[in-house]
Amino acid sequence: MNYEDWVRKELRELSKSLGFQYTPHEEIKNRLVRIRTGMEKQGIEALLVVQKMNFYYLSGTTQDGLIFIPLEGNPLLMIKREVERAKVESPIKEIVPLKSSREIPLLIQAHSRKLPLGLGLELDMLPVKDYFKFQELFPSTKLTDASSILREARKIKSSFEINLMRKAGEIGKKVYHEGQKVLKEGMTEIEFGGLLEAAAKRCGHEGLLRVNSLNYEAYTWHVLSGLTGGIVSQSDSPMGGLGLSPAFPVGASLKVMRAHEPILVDFGTCYHGYQADETRMFSIGRMEQKFIDAYKACKEIHDTVLEEARPGADCETIFVKTLQLAKKLGYKDSYLGPPGLQTRFIAHGIGLELNELPFIAQDRSYLLEEGMTFAVEPKIVFPGEGSVGIENTVAITEKGYEILTPVSQEIFQV
Amino acid sequence: MNYEDWVRKELRELSKSLGFQYTPHEEIKNRLVRIRTGMEKQGIEALLVVQKMNFYYLSGTTQDGLIFIPLEGNPLLMIKREVERAKVESPIKEIVPLKSSREIPLLIQAHSRKLPLGLGLELDMLPVKDYFKFQELFPSTKLTDASSILREARKIKSSFEINLMRKAGEIGKKVYHEGQKVLKEGMTEIEFGGLLEAAAKRCGHEGLLRVNSLNYEAYTWHVLSGLTGGIVSQSDSPMGGLGLSPAFPVGASLKVMRAHEPILVDFGTCYHGYQADETRMFSIGRMEQKFIDAYKACKEIHDTVLEEARPGADCETIFVKTLQLAKKLGYKDSYLGPPGLQTRFIAHGIGLELNELPFIAQDRSYLLEEGMTFAVEPKIVFPGEGSVGIENTVAITEKGYEILTPVSQEIFQV
Repeated sequence: MNYEDWVRKELRELSKSLGFQYTPHEEIKNRLVRIRTGMEKQGIEALLVVQKMNFYYLSGTTQDGLIFIPLEGNPLLMIKREVERAKVESPIKEIVPLKSSREIPLLIQAHSRKLPLGLGLELDMLPVKDYFKFQELFPSTKLTDASSILREARKIKSSFEINLMRKAGEIGKKVYHEGQKVLKEGMTEIEFGGLLEAAAKRCGHEGLLRVNSLNYEAYTWHVLSGLTGGIVSQSDSPMGGLGLSPAFPVGASLKVMRAHEPILVDFGTCYHGYQADETRMFSIGRMEQKFIDAYKACKEIHDTVLEEARPGADCETIFVKTLQLAKKLGYKDSYLGPPGLQTRFIAHGIGLELNELPFIAQDRSYLLEEGMTFAVEPKIVFPGEGSVGIENTVAITEKGYEILTPVSQEIFQV
Repeated sequence: MNYEDWVRKELRELSKSLGFQYTPHEEIKNRLVRIRTGMEKQGIEALLVVQKMNFYYLSGTTQDGLIFIPLEGNPLLMIKREVERAKVESPIKEIVPLKSSREIPLLIQAHSRKLPLGLGLELDMLPVKDYFKFQELFPSTKLTDASSILREARKIKSSFEINLMRKAGEIGKKVYHEGQKVLKEGMTEIEFGGLLEAAAKRCGHEGLLRVNSLNYEAYTWHVLSGLTGGIVSQSDSPMGGLGLSPAFPVGASLKVMRAHEPILVDFGTCYHGYQADETRMFSIGRMEQKFIDAYKACKEIHDTVLEEARPGADCETIFVKTLQLAKKLGYKDSYLGPPGLQTRFIAHGIGLELNELPFIAQDRSYLLEEGMTFAVEPKIVFPGEGSVGIENTVAITEKGYEILTPVSQEIFQV
């Protein structure tokens, strides 16, 4: 059968029967309004968006391509591969094949009857070689940075987006239930992590976690037991773990898990690109008292953040309050990492990526708004011994918050 | 215990006891010679390397930081996080903490007693915002593109590197054996993929596969059964599969696997950052004859590539030969994808990343050399029906090649 015919005839129904949800036209329309508000504020006439998650946010597809968004008029989707599939996946009306980057100005000209005088690009992630190419392709156009427009628009989630995150959270619940079934003394951290991930995938977790960063790699197998929980690494995280090698020195290792150790599992899930992030503690037999106490402190800090979490609350104020509480509880030197290496955030925005706005953090004095989603994760680290923590993903609602990661917050003792 | 003291005292032995291999000093020295040959050719006085895999190649660590490499004199490792751990992992002697990017020129000045007049950067991946920052930090220095120096140096692997790839290949062998044990009718593609990945992780697979690209995401759960094997997607691959959603429209889906369908498993493994990539076919009961025949054709094309694989062989010539053979065997319109969407490579270089040199491809007329490693992957695609293929990772030896992925090349019928 001819491939294009097959896609046009069969792909949509097949995909839907296997759980695909397409982004509705109305949703994309609303996102465009948000983006254009930002463009107007910055005086940017048009955007050219390439980074995968920005592109998905604006088009509903992740087929390989670019989206051109003029301040007025229809957006134009230019697709390198695979254009017929993009037409099935995206509610954008104008979708054209792109054979070579030299065609980009020609396609825009044909679409808008002119080339923009100013063009916003994602300079936070766009590689320099691509920037130079755009300079050649648009010699009379001023190229400016539009990263913050996209970041700002994406920081408030719609009910469509929050619903996908809720589903990611439901997958997480099943993962932690599976963990209680399969955890056994003598298992290595990475073996346990692999089984958790297999359970997540079986339930529809997409496997990848995403971060907007050149070098930062997100992963799900963050299983740290006893002393590996006391190890810091490359990541801006209270503890990185040992990992499997110097090439990937974070997360689960080949260390065997023993009875009474704190076993920290920080597992993110991804459903239709939307992520939920959560952390729970496991132990084989009763966890040593020192760690139970520290976990209670994390829980108290976590609950304090949520008590404050509502529209209008200031992020930095909440963060400072947690520092004070950690100090009062006796964890000044172990809260969020060992001295000198303590992280300066208690929550990170989350959605399509793990480093979205808002951050509840030092030097981030801005207000929470309805529709923001973040993962709050107090953690306490004892070098050479282990670490504990709790993490939940929450959405700010009209008057407070909703937890999107509904699994029990008890320590899972097996 | 004080964290830094713990790292200095305990981390090396703990890591080694859990399987870590550190890059030897001699290995880094040889890599620096290769890099400096390229720098001399391009007249580049110094390099500043940030991209994770280039950084690991030159330092032996992936702690967060930059490496400065002058044409003469010692390299300087500047580490944001975590510096004590970098000292354990890297054989580089001069390792300093980096608190803020403003310190970079000061640290280089202190190290080299001058700032370079020309500085090579990785413009293929470096984000524009970082480039602008380097322009500010080095106002009197000419910034040039050094991407090709790194790519060229990395294309020839040492015996140390090939040995790590061999270990990745051994993990792959265990994965395919596990596949024969767990595959059952009625299982979904993603469930099978998750179990394969759990088996790989248990054996030390690092989970991530890496590609040098802004948007291209590599993954291991490429399990396609029957008609999903006939679907093309965003990736430059003969078939992408359906995936789980428009946010990740590649690889395994929630489709249930049925008897007699071709089940294609393209599974990469990663050991100490070094990757092996391979594809094998599974079936539940006997695979339909059409696919068995196509698989035999893939095998014949694969074997033909390997017959030619030796130092001095021209990559494009080999590729064209496979086109002719595919045509002769009756697969002109299904070889490497459906008409109009056929990929133009039969093998991709592999090492720390999946898109290294060499490519055995259209318009790539260069010669194979001893120490090159690539994954050769003939595939045949029938839209609406399914696909088949075989893939092995090989190293070019003095007189021929060595297969690094030793699992049996038969169809795994369960």
